[in-house]
Amino acid sequence: MKEISEFSIPEPSLKRLPQYHHYLVELKSKGINLVSCSTIGRDLEFVPVQVRKDLQFTGVIGKPKVGYSVAELVVAIEAFLGWDIVNEAILVGVGNLGTAILGHERFSRFGLQVVAAFDIDPGKIGQTIHGKTVLSLAGLADIAPRMGIHIGIITTPAEVAQAVANEMVTAGIQAIWNFAPTKLNVPQHMIVHNEDLYSSLASLSCKLAKRFRAQIRETERLN
Amino acid sequence: MKEISEFSIPEPSLKRLPQYHHYLVELKSKGINLVSCSTIGRDLEFVPVQVRKDLQFTGVIGKPKVGYSVAELVVAIEAFLGWDIVNEAILVGVGNLGTAILGHERFSRFGLQVVAAFDIDPGKIGQTIHGKTVLSLAGLADIAPRMGIHIGIITTPAEVAQAVANEMVTAGIQAIWNFAPTKLNVPQHMIVHNEDLYSSLASLSCKLAKRFRAQIRETERLN
Repeated sequence: MKEISEFSIPEPSLKRLPQYHHYLVELKSKGINLVSCSTIGRDLEFVPVQVRKDLQFTGVIGKPKVGYSVAELVVAIEAFLGWDIVNEAILVGVGNLGTAILGHERFSRFGLQVVAAFDIDPGKIGQTIHGKTVLSLAGLADIAPRMGIHIGIITTPAEVAQAVANEMVTAGIQAIWNFAPTKLNVPQHMIVHNEDLYSSLASLSCKLAKRFRAQIRETERLN
Repeated sequence: MKEISEFSIPEPSLKRLPQYHHYLVELKSKGINLVSCSTIGRDLEFVPVQVRKDLQFTGVIGKPKVGYSVAELVVAIEAFLGWDIVNEAILVGVGNLGTAILGHERFSRFGLQVVAAFDIDPGKIGQTIHGKTVLSLAGLADIAPRMGIHIGIITTPAEVAQAVANEMVTAGIQAIWNFAPTKLNVPQHMIVHNEDLYSSLASLSCKLAKRFRAQIRETERLN
């Protein structure tokens, strides 16, 4: 395998890599060893040129008229996405959403193992949820560094998310996946990804409303 | 209020609108009636010029040296996002994630009321979850049109998501918010938003791995 490209990858290409990975793992499980850009493009509904460009970022180059080695690509994507280096996370906030994430077996196939869950609710602490014992948030600063964990997931209400983020910074967490609908103030070195469901919702309802308004106008025009 | 702009809004601006809305509702609850671009920008950490551009899409123009009417902006954003026209949805798949969404009171403040939940599991049908009775998926095609629902949320496993999407199309649903990690084949007229948590995760772990690799190289260089 070639060395991993140090050029920065455009966000859309990066976001497609898990889709390629998922697809390639399925091919592999079917015993398929080689695949071409055009086949990948056809199956995933991407332009083949785009497929070639996306996959180039992982350092793997397909052979003309032969295609890519499926196994090589799987390993290269996993390495590019860092699943060989970082794949353990802790989660804070074992409400409905936190429970959903803890129970999501598929995440482990996508490079994420949630190894510990924390909460502040005495009614939840000590309970076992999807095989993980819920720990007291007070223990985070001790446990996370000891386990060498660098990813933290926040699934708390918005009101307490900042306090949790502060705890995570103290605990040596370097990347936060934030599901709480609030902006976090964290030191510059922190990597934060806000999972903004309200934005998704806004995008959806805005498009639908636009269509309905057009229909209303059309009806008015005809009457 | 001016007529709603028919120009298409760039996705980043659209995605910021719920943040403005959230912020403005809070101002309003504090009894603040007027606000300037620069204050909004400072509080939300956006460039004031960007704030002015974003808000212009809603048809509201701030007055020089006075600012925006908070109440007018709130109504204008809600109208732009279509919350006055479409705000009811049905949800299919009452697992952990579906339960989390049903229990998320905040969605109702962001224009979404989940009015009915469906599942195929006989053990779940008839149960009440967060105040909603879980209905049999078989009833969807009858109930959704009768209630005039146009938004469907899919929180099922990937394997059954396509079948659920087909049911939704039959039931007259026009917009699907898909949380299942799979691509849906739906007629052209359907509005689909895929909530791709794996892409988010890939983006996070890739950045973190890149940092670790750089640190490893730096350590090697020094030794």
